Amino acid sequence: MDIIIYAVLASFFIALAAGYVGVPLLKRLKFGQQVRDDGPRTHLSKAGTPTMGGVIILVALTAATLIFARGSFEYVWFALAVTLGYGLIGMMDDLIIIIKKRSLGLKAYQKIIGQLGIAIIVAFYAYNSPIIGSKLIVPFAGGMEWDLGGWYVPFTVFVMVSMVNSVNLIDGLDGLASGVTMINSAAYTVILLGMYQLYVTTGLDLAAAGISNMMVFSAALTGACLGFLRFNTYPAKVFMGDTGSLALGAALAVGTIVSRLQLLLVITGLLYVLTSVSVILQVGSYKLRRKRIFRMAPIHHHFELKGVPETKIVSFYMMITVLLCLVAILSVN
Amino acid sequence: MDIIIYAVLASFFIALAAGYVGVPLLKRLKFGQQVRDDGPRTHLSKAGTPTMGGVIILVALTAATLIFARGSFEYVWFALAVTLGYGLIGMMDDLIIIIKKRSLGLKAYQKIIGQLGIAIIVAFYAYNSPIIGSKLIVPFAGGMEWDLGGWYVPFTVFVMVSMVNSVNLIDGLDGLASGVTMINSAAYTVILLGMYQLYVTTGLDLAAAGISNMMVFSAALTGACLGFLRFNTYPAKVFMGDTGSLALGAALAVGTIVSRLQLLLVITGLLYVLTSVSVILQVGSYKLRRKRIFRMAPIHHHFELKGVPETKIVSFYMMITVLLCLVAILSVN
Repeated sequence: MDIIIYAVLASFFIALAAGYVGVPLLKRLKFGQQVRDDGPRTHLSKAGTPTMGGVIILVALTAATLIFARGSFEYVWFALAVTLGYGLIGMMDDLIIIIKKRSLGLKAYQKIIGQLGIAIIVAFYAYNSPIIGSKLIVPFAGGMEWDLGGWYVPFTVFVMVSMVNSVNLIDGLDGLASGVTMINSAAYTVILLGMYQLYVTTGLDLAAAGISNMMVFSAALTGACLGFLRFNTYPAKVFMGDTGSLALGAALAVGTIVSRLQLLLVITGLLYVLTSVSVILQVGSYKLRRKRIFRMAPIHHHFELKGVPETKIVSFYMMITVLLCLVAILSVN
Repeated sequence: MDIIIYAVLASFFIALAAGYVGVPLLKRLKFGQQVRDDGPRTHLSKAGTPTMGGVIILVALTAATLIFARGSFEYVWFALAVTLGYGLIGMMDDLIIIIKKRSLGLKAYQKIIGQLGIAIIVAFYAYNSPIIGSKLIVPFAGGMEWDLGGWYVPFTVFVMVSMVNSVNLIDGLDGLASGVTMINSAAYTVILLGMYQLYVTTGLDLAAAGISNMMVFSAALTGACLGFLRFNTYPAKVFMGDTGSLALGAALAVGTIVSRLQLLLVITGLLYVLTSVSVILQVGSYKLRRKRIFRMAPIHHHFELKGVPETKIVSFYMMITVLLCLVAILSVN
């Protein structure tokens, strides 16, 4: 258990150091965010805040995971490579915005091709891995597993792509994506600790080793988000950009894929899901009926336009996520 | 472990229900806070926010603890009685302010007599209890215990009185006292779970029963603070008042006294300590040299007058407390 806390602390302090060095650098390089001008008016003051702060998270997550991982590094490298891969797609997007000084970066089809490409690799690798295979742990079912067979591949592609895009969509208020993801990863650290102890006592050593490193990975993700929040909490000194949001979504998704806890994402990540659903409903409604359901999508902007202060929306999202995560911990106990 | 999560969830929902009923009631009864007019100007808009919201915390804490406690209730009643006792002193203070419409309630000597009175009872009871005794667990000492002998009594009085007043002093920004205390109580829940598992495996059943109920008490305190934050996060719809802050300090102190973890309060509660120290330094410096050290004490108002936004100070205090609590968990592992 100590190793979890060391990983959180190390990751936090690395993120802090990276932030103190990186934020002024990003600012000097004029990597300021172009704010969409159709959003809430209060967001116009956010123009000029440097973006691409996700690199702070990536540095801390990678370093702390590699320091504290033990035994076989197979899944460690897998998880880090997938996270960094999505981080790179996000970074391309961020850089195009900065260099071309426009508010949209990569074209939609370019993003989707990149995201699907990595997701397909993840799906086949996981499917063929002896430890991961095609089974999922079912919540609230006393440890029951559900074998998806060949459907595992498209399912995993869907999990990856929808997670990275959902975290991308929720990243619209100061500290929102980093706060909610921090709580999610803390919950997975706790759940994985429980699984690890169970596997050790039941002699499943191979599975235990993989789980143990995913536990370190989750702990490092928690610390990285906490450290990043030092700079990202309202009023934000830096945004994570797509670099950060795609990487965070990927990290959560790949962590649950290795530990076969993907179905839990619907519980712990319900707010990511609802965020995406709000966008789908809004766009669908507008295309079909020329009417909007929300004042603005994603739904956190709807609340903002209704007059709820930004900081209050963020603390509510975090509070609800804490509750959802407690339920998720119960669901696999 | 499930019982912890049930206690957190139950306490949260009870606090939520109590808040939805209680906040409009407190508002209707015109239990608005009189804001000191020498404070930061931004706080003047806080006049009219109802106070005495601490009752929400007390209802949730008491109900959830009683629902989930098991076995001997001796320490359960002890902890609840002490918490409610300090809550009552705070409530007298709050009520005098409201009824007399002035910004100071009980006279200083009246408060101190009440606080010392309960603290002395706690100290003698704990000293004579076979399970608690006069020993403290020393952090970072591999489970070493330190027998204070007769000094245990004045030490315990000091712990009680300084904790209730420190939480009272830190309660100056929206969500600050409730947020920091929530993280503290969550950490004690984790630490007590570790102790409980150790005691069970080493056959110390009597100690384990006491610890198990303190774990439930801490979990209920965590949930109560989380539920209260629903109403207390910036911009606050209700303040906890002295009812809440004295009760929260008492709950933390009495919980650590029963589990003999008082020394850990210096780690997990470092920000309470520094808050009090900032007041002592400010008052001392002014009396001795007619000069102030901080623009305003407690130190969170100093940061505010320096231009740091209220919400940012609160998130920083919470972030630092998370780190301190992780260190505290390591210190007794």
